[in-house]
Amino acid sequence: MAILRGGIDLGGTKIEAIVVDAKNNVRGSARHPTPTEGGPSDVAASMIAALSEAAAQAGTDTKALVGVGVGSPGSVDTASGRVASARNLPGWEGSFALGNTLTKQLGAPTFIANDVQAGTRGEFVLGAGKPYKSVLGLFWGTGVGGGIVLGGEPYRGRGGAGEIGHLVYKPGGRRCGCGNRGCVEAYAGRASLETKARKEIKKGAKSDLVKIAKKKQHEHFTSAVWADAVKKGDKLATQLIDGGVEAIGVGLASALNLLDIEAVIIGGGLGVRFGQEYVERIVAAAEPHLFPGHAAPTVKLASLGDLGGALGAALLVPAKPAAKKPARKPAARPSAA
Amino acid sequence: MAILRGGIDLGGTKIEAIVVDAKNNVRGSARHPTPTEGGPSDVAASMIAALSEAAAQAGTDTKALVGVGVGSPGSVDTASGRVASARNLPGWEGSFALGNTLTKQLGAPTFIANDVQAGTRGEFVLGAGKPYKSVLGLFWGTGVGGGIVLGGEPYRGRGGAGEIGHLVYKPGGRRCGCGNRGCVEAYAGRASLETKARKEIKKGAKSDLVKIAKKKQHEHFTSAVWADAVKKGDKLATQLIDGGVEAIGVGLASALNLLDIEAVIIGGGLGVRFGQEYVERIVAAAEPHLFPGHAAPTVKLASLGDLGGALGAALLVPAKPAAKKPARKPAARPSAA
Repeated sequence: MAILRGGIDLGGTKIEAIVVDAKNNVRGSARHPTPTEGGPSDVAASMIAALSEAAAQAGTDTKALVGVGVGSPGSVDTASGRVASARNLPGWEGSFALGNTLTKQLGAPTFIANDVQAGTRGEFVLGAGKPYKSVLGLFWGTGVGGGIVLGGEPYRGRGGAGEIGHLVYKPGGRRCGCGNRGCVEAYAGRASLETKARKEIKKGAKSDLVKIAKKKQHEHFTSAVWADAVKKGDKLATQLIDGGVEAIGVGLASALNLLDIEAVIIGGGLGVRFGQEYVERIVAAAEPHLFPGHAAPTVKLASLGDLGGALGAALLVPAKPAAKKPARKPAARPSAA
Repeated sequence: MAILRGGIDLGGTKIEAIVVDAKNNVRGSARHPTPTEGGPSDVAASMIAALSEAAAQAGTDTKALVGVGVGSPGSVDTASGRVASARNLPGWEGSFALGNTLTKQLGAPTFIANDVQAGTRGEFVLGAGKPYKSVLGLFWGTGVGGGIVLGGEPYRGRGGAGEIGHLVYKPGGRRCGCGNRGCVEAYAGRASLETKARKEIKKGAKSDLVKIAKKKQHEHFTSAVWADAVKKGDKLATQLIDGGVEAIGVGLASALNLLDIEAVIIGGGLGVRFGQEYVERIVAAAEPHLFPGHAAPTVKLASLGDLGGALGAALLVPAKPAAKKPARKPAARPSAA
């Protein structure tokens, strides 16, 4: 029987669940919207529903999985499986035992990591990061997150390394979701961009962002909404996205000057949606700030697409299945003492 | 006979040479001014003179040293021992085989690394970084340099990691010595501060910096000159140093948000001269920019003082002496095939 693993990418807007085999081929997948009301246990219930659906598609049951990996936003304690301060999820200001809850209800051991670290792992092992030993993953979406792999191993610092979205772009500048001022994310994260756009629209700026969102029946200015608006030449959207590119470029340059790392992989909802052209624009924005003594960096677009986060999560499950009971057949006797 | 090693810290204004024993006790030391004219071979000659003096003080000769470590500015190729683009040294724009030159003339194998990486290693092994496994060394002097140790090992990226002085502080701001604009170093490095101060004085700003430098017979505004001026309440000096503290604080916050590292050690000419009070001021400047999800950082003053760079350099010499020729006495025969 095939050894199957589960992977769940828990996002602010959707839950992506997959079941993969030992070669990381996707055998089943399901996407559920992330609950916008309730609390952590409602989110957990949706995760279980999504993974159960993916398992059924793969012709199995969650109980039969050797393990389930989860990439989660917020502050993740990988050892205990607790997740705290997941600000984009409903009622999740405190700490919740996500790991234990899932392990119990799925009937399979659960392994949780930060969503961005899981996404970076996915791109490193299976995607655009494959040729390299050390990579910086930069995820441009609702927020701006980063994951670091050094010499093949995830680098986590004291647990929270990689906050590239909170490198300082403009000291004393725009207020960030984290509470500080002038972070890269305050100028480039989708949530901050939407807040800024709605404020400008309220003040009289002309923009089709609201209209485009309505037409797509999206409550928020999703990546698709921003991409559409920019494509149509919407002035406000273009100006804000350009500002985001500039902020990411400066933050990326700072990160590269410090890390002098082999390769950068750019992913995330906006990153993937805007694609290669914007990867090149981010590099161009970084260039004037790159330390001249360093070799030029390698910056690539993430290649795993929408399932990258879930694939990275599935990779959190240890490769070797847990030690099995000894076989019934008696072992050969050792030839000498 | 004692196993002795040499260490040379090659700085922009002085060359510090020491001879240490196996327990890193300093057995001899000498300080020579760095030549301000000529080229790399003149600098090498001064290095040899300084180390020879230190060796004589230790009752030995450079030929008897098991190895000599060198911390050098510029772009250092540790494998070949070549040093390029050492902008603070005379006629050193190109590449020079410093390692081979020293090895030949000293009669002992030479090991070269970046000066800041050597300084970080010194503090990590013998100084303020001793209790930690991962540290960021921040050296505030002529420039602003950084060295990184992760899990006990130097982290060099592609060779040039740690350029914390070139993290972006103000995009498009003051011109930096590296050619870019708005780097931390452009606001905090002693060379940039002197350029800015002389410009302001020329424009009519009142300051005692020139007078203090003359009195000390220092051609440049050294760390001692800046410290004196600030102590005496010199307005321009205070304002510029305060600006430097702010820039370093912001850069440090960006570095910490990315690395989430165990400890930071602040050294360098200005860092050591201004001492603990300014370490606290740098931390206060960083605080509004630190990612709220991270634990508070540990930031300490370097503890090795003036010899820190040379001690770190001496640590570059491999701990075990090279394999010796087999002893004359025949080896015991192996008991079985």
